Amino acid sequence: MFNEKMYALGSKRSIIREIFEYCKTRGAQIGSDKVFDFSIGNPSVEPPKEIEETICDLLKNESPVLLHGYTSAQGDFGTREAIANDINARFGTSLTPNSIYMTCGAAASLTISLRALLNSGEECIVFAPFFTEYRVFIENAGGKVVVSKPQEKTFQIDTADFESKISESTKAVIMNSPNNPSGVVYSEETISAVCEILKRKEKEYGHPIYLIADEPYRELVFDETPVPYLMNYYDDTIVCYSYSKALSLPGERIGYIAVSPKMEDSVNVYLAVCGAGRSLGYVCAPSLFQQVIKKCVGAKVDVNVYKENRDILYGALTEYGYECVHPDGAFYLFVKALEDDAYKFFERAKEKEILVVPCDDFGVSGYVRIAYCVDKKRIVNALPAFKALAEEYKK
Amino acid sequence: MFNEKMYALGSKRSIIREIFEYCKTRGAQIGSDKVFDFSIGNPSVEPPKEIEETICDLLKNESPVLLHGYTSAQGDFGTREAIANDINARFGTSLTPNSIYMTCGAAASLTISLRALLNSGEECIVFAPFFTEYRVFIENAGGKVVVSKPQEKTFQIDTADFESKISESTKAVIMNSPNNPSGVVYSEETISAVCEILKRKEKEYGHPIYLIADEPYRELVFDETPVPYLMNYYDDTIVCYSYSKALSLPGERIGYIAVSPKMEDSVNVYLAVCGAGRSLGYVCAPSLFQQVIKKCVGAKVDVNVYKENRDILYGALTEYGYECVHPDGAFYLFVKALEDDAYKFFERAKEKEILVVPCDDFGVSGYVRIAYCVDKKRIVNALPAFKALAEEYKK
Repeated sequence: MFNEKMYALGSKRSIIREIFEYCKTRGAQIGSDKVFDFSIGNPSVEPPKEIEETICDLLKNESPVLLHGYTSAQGDFGTREAIANDINARFGTSLTPNSIYMTCGAAASLTISLRALLNSGEECIVFAPFFTEYRVFIENAGGKVVVSKPQEKTFQIDTADFESKISESTKAVIMNSPNNPSGVVYSEETISAVCEILKRKEKEYGHPIYLIADEPYRELVFDETPVPYLMNYYDDTIVCYSYSKALSLPGERIGYIAVSPKMEDSVNVYLAVCGAGRSLGYVCAPSLFQQVIKKCVGAKVDVNVYKENRDILYGALTEYGYECVHPDGAFYLFVKALEDDAYKFFERAKEKEILVVPCDDFGVSGYVRIAYCVDKKRIVNALPAFKALAEEYKK
Repeated sequence: MFNEKMYALGSKRSIIREIFEYCKTRGAQIGSDKVFDFSIGNPSVEPPKEIEETICDLLKNESPVLLHGYTSAQGDFGTREAIANDINARFGTSLTPNSIYMTCGAAASLTISLRALLNSGEECIVFAPFFTEYRVFIENAGGKVVVSKPQEKTFQIDTADFESKISESTKAVIMNSPNNPSGVVYSEETISAVCEILKRKEKEYGHPIYLIADEPYRELVFDETPVPYLMNYYDDTIVCYSYSKALSLPGERIGYIAVSPKMEDSVNVYLAVCGAGRSLGYVCAPSLFQQVIKKCVGAKVDVNVYKENRDILYGALTEYGYECVHPDGAFYLFVKALEDDAYKFFERAKEKEILVVPCDDFGVSGYVRIAYCVDKKRIVNALPAFKALAEEYKK
């Protein structure tokens, strides 16, 4: 009687939620330090000190009526200006405050962008492995999901497969680098190739194909791996950003959409973004954190903590015989299950108190995601269990 | 090429936005204290002192990783528990934490509820005058807006008209009391009559008709006017609440949905709400303010400031000959324009530097809304201009 699709979405078995509940129960039985939970992508590094200091300063010095008041729907002008200037300084772009629309985080950035761009029945291409919620967001916008397969082992984009998936109905493409769940950063070579194909296809079909850059992990890269800024490669680009991972503020729901000013119809696409935000009920992004971002636009979390975790875990797992792409960013390892069925592997890991996420819903079967945004101690303590698990499979 | 509907929504002329821009320009010309802006419903009373104290305490005493981390999608359990207990204590209901779903404010509460309840083409009845965005939210959910006319002068619901508007396709009804833009609080008599009709029609059509109580102004009432709690009159009720006005935190985007546990299909409707929130990109409500609400669930702004403003303005305007329903809540006066065309009246008021909102888009023509959530000085200073305007029309 109510909306069945929404009911299905709300009641669907979620493996991550199940693991979460299991952890609580199991932790109570054997002690939470004995359960090695690697299932959740919740930042483990503290937000930069400036964040707390800035909140306290704002509370002390600003009028509370203004500080907690509505901003304009697209966001505080000064905040948008600070962000545009920061992006321009880092990537040589020419954004203005009117290229930026403040959002309640990455999911909002994506749902708003997709709603602004897609018409009913149009297609949106995603690159496997991909964040599972893309499917939900694209379908909410009335669109159809088209999955492009990755290259084996490297998990870079397979450009030939990508080209074959583009059709007259393709309206948008979502690219997520550094990637959840693989940790892979797409190379400049990959990106150039993708953008060349897109330009050619735009000409062939005579309409824009928008490239949505989903970049919550942009700042989480190691060993100075470059993360090319997509607007510099392709004019019809919209960047969906979030401070959830960059500043360890995932619960505060603060991010933005940046519409490339080089897009032919940039002003009108921005207006469609405003309309989509309005129709989805996003009145404005949280006001206190808009002010925080204005003052902390250059702040950074300590990425070395994640890098150290990655090095320990990647080093040990590959030594034990696990097969795994070397991740240059984000905080995930994408590990080949030791049997074909990732769910069966998940169950056997669970017997060793290791909790990882089977990745079939991410568009690649036979793999699990290990989120290493956890205390180093948990990783070190889990290594013998990972080793024992690998040895069991060798028997 | 992109979504034309979203573009139309984003680029549509908005009278309130235009007034906002005009104010800035005009204020620069003649001094902002000479422009009497009554167009915006932005609380003018400071948040209760506990809010700032609680934020500072939380920053000092909680782990920042937890404080700013994701909560579950439906919200922090303790926050939901505090809210359920507070509602139960005030209204004798039997809500549990699992009746409450935390949201990013009233607009999110409404878009999520409508998406959860409506199927494509189903109807949602709104009572004129109504908040203009209802139309946007209902249409985004695929629904059709059906407007029920008010009683003349009192602006209570015309129950005969309401009954005539219900059809087999009616899935939901939105009731907003205290009302934006009229300031009217629906009487218990009105509510009982509406609920009796709904019960009868549910039986007649053999399916639920959901009553959505949009209550951001619940706490802003004067002279102890009772605001009946709709769940106590009708089982198929969903309350959409926001702390924007109650605690003067409109920019922070924090509110909730409460699904009546007496609803026959309560658990499943709650799951549909969860699914709708997910599909619209609402990952969780802002985490810091969820904690603030948990600790400040009984806090209140000083409503007497609004009451004093109302008394001054209502007293003076009716003395000058304006016709206006006596508002018992919210912070709006709903004033009959002194000519048939509210836009023409708006223009003549503007010549006297008075800025009010013509209400045609609120479903009642020939009226303007005066938001008195402003500094008392602005009201006092504007009175001679209101008087002169009325006298001009008498000539």
